[in-house]
Formats: sequence, C-alpha cells, structure tokens
Amino acid sequence: MAVGEPHIVKSYDDQLDKLNDALFRMCGRAERQLADALKAVADRDADLAAEIVRADPEVDALEHYVSEQTVRLLALRSPVADDLRLVVSGLRVAGDLERIADHAANTARRSIVISQQAPVPPLRVLLRLGKAVQDLLHETLDAYINRDAERALAARDRDVEVDEIYSGLFRELLACMAEDPRTITVCTHLMFMAKNIERIGDHATNIAEMTYYLITGRQIETERPKGDSSSAVEG
Amino acid sequence: MAVGEPHIVKSYDDQLDKLNDALFRMCGRAERQLADALKAVADRDADLAAEIVRADPEVDALEHYVSEQTVRLLALRSPVADDLRLVVSGLRVAGDLERIADHAANTARRSIVISQQAPVPPLRVLLRLGKAVQDLLHETLDAYINRDAERALAARDRDVEVDEIYSGLFRELLACMAEDPRTITVCTHLMFMAKNIERIGDHATNIAEMTYYLITGRQIETERPKGDSSSAVEG
Repeated sequence: MAVGEPHIVKSYDDQLDKLNDALFRMCGRAERQLADALKAVADRDADLAAEIVRADPEVDALEHYVSEQTVRLLALRSPVADDLRLVVSGLRVAGDLERIADHAANTARRSIVISQQAPVPPLRVLLRLGKAVQDLLHETLDAYINRDAERALAARDRDVEVDEIYSGLFRELLACMAEDPRTITVCTHLMFMAKNIERIGDHATNIAEMTYYLITGRQIETERPKGDSSSAVEG
Repeated sequence: MAVGEPHIVKSYDDQLDKLNDALFRMCGRAERQLADALKAVADRDADLAAEIVRADPEVDALEHYVSEQTVRLLALRSPVADDLRLVVSGLRVAGDLERIADHAANTARRSIVISQQAPVPPLRVLLRLGKAVQDLLHETLDAYINRDAERALAARDRDVEVDEIYSGLFRELLACMAEDPRTITVCTHLMFMAKNIERIGDHATNIAEMTYYLITGRQIETERPKGDSSSAVEG
C-alpha cells in the first residue's frame, strides 16, 4: 500500500493524520524560527530575537506530542510497512526539527548580545550562510511534505555549498579578531551562531535522507561528507 | 510485566537481547571515545586522536544496526508496554550515544591541530570540564545499564556543575585571546572543544531522562535548565 492510501478503520487514519499534521506544523514552525532569527540578526532587532527565544518551547511541545502519538500508534495499532516507516521516520524528523528550532533560538539569543556592539564585516558572510541554509531547509521540507524523493536527494547535495561558506566565514572571523582584539567577543558569538546555522543544515540533510527512506524504503547509498570542517581551519 | 521478564517465544527474546547488546556495546564505545579524546588532549597525543577519529564510523554502524533492529522488532513483533518502551527508548539512546561519540571525535580532531601549538592556561580548565562530563556520562550509563531510576535522576542533576565549569572556561578563553591575540586560533579551537564536551553532557542528560522513562513509564516532571549558557557571557 502506498503512503497515504486510505485505511478501512477510520480512527486509525485519524491518528496518522494527526501525527502528520503535528509534523507539518513543526516544519512550518522550524522554518519560521530560522527566518525570524536571521531577520533579527540582520535588523539588530532584539525584540524579535526575544520573541523567538520565547517561542522555542512551543516547538518542544510539538515534538513531545509527536513522540507520545508515535508510541500510542505503535502500541495500539502496530502499523506495518509504509505506515511503520511513516511513524518511525516521523519520530526522527520531529527530533531534527526540534534541534533546528533550538539552534535558531540559540542564534537569536546571541544576536541580542551582539546587537549591543559595533557590527563587524564577517556579519555579512554570516547572513549569506543563513540564506544558504534557509534555502536548503526550505527545499528539504518541501520535499518531505510533498513526498518527493528526487527533490530530497537534490536538497541534500546543497549542504556542500553551506560547508564552503561556513569555512570561509570561519577564516574571516579569525582574521578579524587577530586584526582588532576588541572584536573578539562579537566574533566569538558570530562563530557560535555560524556553528548553530551550519548545524541546522546538517539536520536538514538528515530530514532529506529520512524523506528518501520514507518514500523508497531504502537508505541513500552515497556517503555524504561528515564532520566538523572548521577543525581543519588553522587560521 | 517488568522490564527483563522472560517471554514465551524464544526468538523474540533473542531479538530483544541483541538490541540490548548493541546498545550496551554503544555505551562502552561512547564512554571509551570520550576518555581517549580527553587523554589525547592532555597528552598532546595526535596518534591517539587520529585513532579516535578513525573509530567513529564503528559507533555510527552500531547506531544503524539499532535503528534497523528496532524497525524490524516493531514490524514483526509489535511489542507492547515495557517492551515497546525498551525499543522506543533504545532508538533515542542510540541516537544520543552516536552524537556523544561524534562530539568526542570532533574534540579529538581539534586536539590534533592544537597539539602543534603552544599550550594556553585555559587548557587545564578544559580538562576539568572533560572530567566532570566523563563522571556524568559514567553515572548516566551505569544507571541506564543497571536500570536504576534514582541514579539516573541524580546523574541528571550533575549537569549544573558542568554548565558552571563551562561558563568559567568561556570567560577565561575570551580573556586569554584579548591578552594575547597570538592565542586566538588555539583558544577558538578550545572553545569548540568545550562546546563539544558540554554537548556530551547534554546528551548524557537526555539518556538519564530516557532511563527514568524506560523504568517508570513516566517523564521526569521537573524542568532542567536548557539552552546555550555561553551566549550570556559577554566577556
């Protein structure tokens, strides 16, 4: 039975629908949190940043709901085949979405601190990194929601671009601190914001892989580059 | 039926046992990877560090096995009650253990770079942080393996100590860079190593919470402090 085909028992469908609704709502929330966090950074808007931090528990609550709903479905309905994949992948995707929102909130939290200090040139590159990750996340979540395996594969490949911008930004930040030690605190915050944003890209990639698995029942075979590329940057 | 009571069907028990074996092996591997990473940092031992990086895929493979075994169990056996909790929590715990090993590998990777540079005073504090997280992880995994809910609760509370050392270390690193800009690169690596180690503490805390849930069937009610405390450090 293909993903989404109707079942005989109505309330079972209802439960699957509710699970999917919660997941799709999480997708929207996570994407929104990232967009707002980047806007808060660009506009030096501490109020918006504070709003993002405040909204984070709502995403946590949605993840909690998905977990509970998953366990309930597994216990009472014993789904098999496609439905089981839907439920298991949902649990994973919810975990990634929760982390994405968490990284967005951390980025917002640090943007409040740096909004009180003079801006530094690498900020521009951070926003470029943010844009690249935002596009990657958008493509991934569209692929997930529309159950599009090809698009999920394509989105996953964009993570390479993100890694390149991240490495360049890291070098710029080191140079900026060395040139003007007064920027050390700001640049340190930017480094962690960059790391948070880069991690969002990793979680988006996880979701792309989970989407492929959900639709095809197979894991993606080609390895993606993994690890913490900035450790190779020696300044 | 209590966790661990025998089942009628032999091969079902076998499958649960195999799942548990893989999880316990992951516990041992994750703890070992962290211990070795800290040793590599303390001894400036680039060979040991390289070994840790090379061993990381083995932990990934174990997590992959746990995921597959979990889906198989859910599909073919439809576990309920305690067994279902065992399987679902196992999936989560495996995810946390994989991340712990990953953070240890990242720490090792950076230790190779800093072993080629002059040591800085905050290195001592980093090792103290490492020791605190190592203790926290050891307590947590003991609680998990021995199914000890009280001990899991106690381990979880130790995360506060870790956060305190982390915040102090962060301030020291900022001061060190400001005092001597030639230490910027080393201190930056130490910051990310500190973050990796602190994240291991977070994942240990997740496992402690999952252990409590596995044994009692309830979530821990008291909130733990969450977030990225270093964002409050303004240097």
